[in-house]
Amino acid sequence: MFDLKWSQAEKVIARRAFDMALQKELQATIHEAKRRAAKVEEPSELWELESWLTERRGDINRRYDYRYSVLPIVFAHLVRDGHLKLDDLQGLDSEKLERIRRWATL
Amino acid sequence: MFDLKWSQAEKVIARRAFDMALQKELQATIHEAKRRAAKVEEPSELWELESWLTERRGDINRRYDYRYSVLPIVFAHLVRDGHLKLDDLQGLDSEKLERIRRWATL
Repeated sequence: MFDLKWSQAEKVIARRAFDMALQKELQATIHEAKRRAAKVEEPSELWELESWLTERRGDINRRYDYRYSVLPIVFAHLVRDGHLKLDDLQGLDSEKLERIRRWATL
Repeated sequence: MFDLKWSQAEKVIARRAFDMALQKELQATIHEAKRRAAKVEEPSELWELESWLTERRGDINRRYDYRYSVLPIVFAHLVRDGHLKLDDLQGLDSEKLERIRRWATL
């Protein structure tokens, strides 16, 4: 997967899909953080919120890796986890799409 | 300060003052966290909230150290930072109170 070539048009499609999924996850995280914060009553619940935010931050930073060498597996995981649809990636060449589709099912 | 003796009555007073200051700080932190969370709009603000919570957690854990060997300096800092009043410590012997009062002004 490291030797795949990305055309300029594919890079535009990839960037858009990547940013869309990232923004959706960030907005969902903000929404969930507000919900959790509003429910906090005890200090232990506050530190649970803190741990959860730290985990979310690390998780998102880790999974959203925009290096072309790993992008197909990044997309496969985003599709697998429901953050992207294969349709969002239409326009990538068939080899990349097929790999993403196949890996997403594993 | 390491050789100060604590009577049973002093331990009760110390524990009560310590817990009172800690609970007040925790409740104030919960209040502030809710306020900050409600204002979050951008992902960067969410991670600022996360960093702030991590810092608050570390700060509180570090300052609230209930070992008798360090308790006078812990109390001096709580008085200095406005989390306790000297009156909250009435009943401790005069030597401890005087040290706490003096250190709190430094």
